[in-house]
Amino acid sequence: MKKVVKFGGSSLASAEQFKKVGDIIRSDASRRYVVPSAPGKRHSKDTKVTDMLYACYALAEADKDFSAALQKIRARYDEIIKGLGLKMNLDSEFKTIEKNFKDKAGSDYAASRGEYLNGIIMAEYLGFPFIDAAEVIRFDAKGNFDADTTDSLLKTRLEKNEYAVVPGFYGAYKNGTVKTFSRGGSDITGSIVAKAARVDVYENWTDVSGFLMADPRIVKNPKQIRTVSYKELRELSYMGASVLHEDAIYPARIADVPINIRNTNDPEDPGTMIVSPERAEQLISGESSRDIITGIAGSKDFTVVTLYKNMMSQERGFVRRILGILDDYDINFEHLPSGIDTVSVVMSNKQINGRLDEILVEFQSRLRPDSIDVIENIAQIATVGHKMSARRGTAATLFTALANAGVNIRMIDQGSSELNIIVGVDNNDFNKAIQAIYRAFVEA
Amino acid sequence: MKKVVKFGGSSLASAEQFKKVGDIIRSDASRRYVVPSAPGKRHSKDTKVTDMLYACYALAEADKDFSAALQKIRARYDEIIKGLGLKMNLDSEFKTIEKNFKDKAGSDYAASRGEYLNGIIMAEYLGFPFIDAAEVIRFDAKGNFDADTTDSLLKTRLEKNEYAVVPGFYGAYKNGTVKTFSRGGSDITGSIVAKAARVDVYENWTDVSGFLMADPRIVKNPKQIRTVSYKELRELSYMGASVLHEDAIYPARIADVPINIRNTNDPEDPGTMIVSPERAEQLISGESSRDIITGIAGSKDFTVVTLYKNMMSQERGFVRRILGILDDYDINFEHLPSGIDTVSVVMSNKQINGRLDEILVEFQSRLRPDSIDVIENIAQIATVGHKMSARRGTAATLFTALANAGVNIRMIDQGSSELNIIVGVDNNDFNKAIQAIYRAFVEA
Repeated sequence: MKKVVKFGGSSLASAEQFKKVGDIIRSDASRRYVVPSAPGKRHSKDTKVTDMLYACYALAEADKDFSAALQKIRARYDEIIKGLGLKMNLDSEFKTIEKNFKDKAGSDYAASRGEYLNGIIMAEYLGFPFIDAAEVIRFDAKGNFDADTTDSLLKTRLEKNEYAVVPGFYGAYKNGTVKTFSRGGSDITGSIVAKAARVDVYENWTDVSGFLMADPRIVKNPKQIRTVSYKELRELSYMGASVLHEDAIYPARIADVPINIRNTNDPEDPGTMIVSPERAEQLISGESSRDIITGIAGSKDFTVVTLYKNMMSQERGFVRRILGILDDYDINFEHLPSGIDTVSVVMSNKQINGRLDEILVEFQSRLRPDSIDVIENIAQIATVGHKMSARRGTAATLFTALANAGVNIRMIDQGSSELNIIVGVDNNDFNKAIQAIYRAFVEA
Repeated sequence: MKKVVKFGGSSLASAEQFKKVGDIIRSDASRRYVVPSAPGKRHSKDTKVTDMLYACYALAEADKDFSAALQKIRARYDEIIKGLGLKMNLDSEFKTIEKNFKDKAGSDYAASRGEYLNGIIMAEYLGFPFIDAAEVIRFDAKGNFDADTTDSLLKTRLEKNEYAVVPGFYGAYKNGTVKTFSRGGSDITGSIVAKAARVDVYENWTDVSGFLMADPRIVKNPKQIRTVSYKELRELSYMGASVLHEDAIYPARIADVPINIRNTNDPEDPGTMIVSPERAEQLISGESSRDIITGIAGSKDFTVVTLYKNMMSQERGFVRRILGILDDYDINFEHLPSGIDTVSVVMSNKQINGRLDEILVEFQSRLRPDSIDVIENIAQIATVGHKMSARRGTAATLFTALANAGVNIRMIDQGSSELNIIVGVDNNDFNKAIQAIYRAFVEA
């Protein structure tokens, strides 16, 4: 058994948190590769070290004095080193950083030092070798992540190291210039290491015990999701649930490495397992009590434009012309539910971006529909569950719950072999609808 | 009050039926314009006069002796004339027909004689002027119905005739050459006359008391539909319900003339009114007991192809490329329900026409989806009802009924402001599903 363990910023914000992390790693010898983030907030008004680094470098770039700002950053690390009782100092590291800031090494380099330094401390604390991500995570000349080169560089390095610390968030071009992933990028590093090392599990340690079945701001104390498939997760996240970034899931997904979301502050909690649909079925069958649905997510502010035209189906290319117009406006539509002689276009208000009237004029002049109907302020809610649609009565439960809650259904979309049913409701009914669905499937 | 009354072939198959028709027309002085079909079947093993005419003309065209065949046709008319006690004969008419058959006047001309002769008898029987449709219903040089010219020709003629008989099914080119509508075309003639004469109602008399809420082969003694909007009717007919042909509805619809389907054998029955949505609302509010739904129709043998591709929504033009492939295969898709990262294409097996494997190969090579899922033998069922979707609980009732009947739902499609909900079920569940929906909405 081999595991990659990635720790988020809040898990590494202080010496106290570092100790929890150390206990977690030492308690399981299979936790061999450690991907740390930079120190996060110690309390709600604190500043993340990464943000401190960006601010500090901004001064450097403007040729202003940044020594006090850099000293503050160093203080964060020194506090951790001291708290852990380590016999090390970052003198030479900070000298190098100061010099590189003066040489305008770039904001990517600056930001990456948060993870880099935390990695050095982590390696010392655990007694693991430190592998600089700049040496093993490669970007190509266009600035895109070079998966193949990275995979081979990392594999070679990790084969020589049974245990290692690889800082998250950054890599480098072939010439060594540091480049970072988008923020939250340590999750990506963890996933890349998981793939390269062919581990059995990628543990992603954070400050929550996995994902919840619904937004806790809408549903009181929602249950935790124990097992979720990649596809389900993608659907929940698409609909607004705050989960891992897609880029962070991709490498683990293609290597079929399960991702386990864990809570550093509650290490006994098994958290959420993100797995392939095949593994999901196995795991779910082992769960003592499993709800029919995996989760509910939704998002507000969509507009539904319905075009009616008699004998539309005989007018070849009608839908393609709609899509052509949307393309002209650079709009990615959400859904295209169709009836007989009607087709509806569901678009986010964000994509419409104030151009609705313009778009309607285009529709009118280029498609010549008999009528156009517009409903604004629609929320979409996805009720997600692996193989849910194959289970009899799911739709009945869903729509009965909505009817009893007095929610009007403005749109339904469920493709064949889907994992979910998407309903459109008025924005105003958004919370009520999610609460009703949750009650019907989870609390009933 | 002005009405056009059109009578189907079974309503005019014999002198006995003619008498019923005469009583109907004479009982209401507003029934001013009469559009007769050709004599239909008198009993289940009988032959329609139109079919006799086609067969007779086929002989003529092959330079064979057709006198016996023509004599049989004449016998049908003579029987009616005799039964009605009319003092007239068709000697000169049949002489002309015989001559024109020999001159190979065309099968359209031949077929049209069924309505032409019946119109002459009807005019004599009622004492109404006879207007030959060849003089007032015009086709353009390409063989398309010329609505504008017809409208003005007919209007002028009808203004001079308070009452008239206009035979159905045919018209003529400018040069007088007869051309027929597609079969069942007397319905079209009725609708054209209704529009030109600006009548208040177009009564379409047939052998059933209007439309039924469901197929009587599936649901036992389904209730009659009293009022249906054009749109609802279109949806029901699209889904397989046997109603008026779209072309027959169009002229009345654009003139906003209600169409009343009536039963010649049960003239007291009010039948079904086909009206604009606005009129439908008025009429429905006057009905003593009105069901939430207007009707249920469905049809079998569809295939659902679901394409799954991670992050599909970020791949601009994905759906357009699907439609492009369908275009290459000359396929009109039925629906395009979409989920997150998935889009399903619903096509009739008839449109696929044995090329499914080929199409899947195209999808695979041109779209590179992560996976393709195919479900064959799907039936689509539309539950239709004006403003049904705005009524709370409709979806709940529908899906609960299907769940209780043990029907698996394979697809749902409901656009915003739709009149209907379309569900996909297995072909095997087709009857069961329709019965369950009918029970839930009508019998409950």
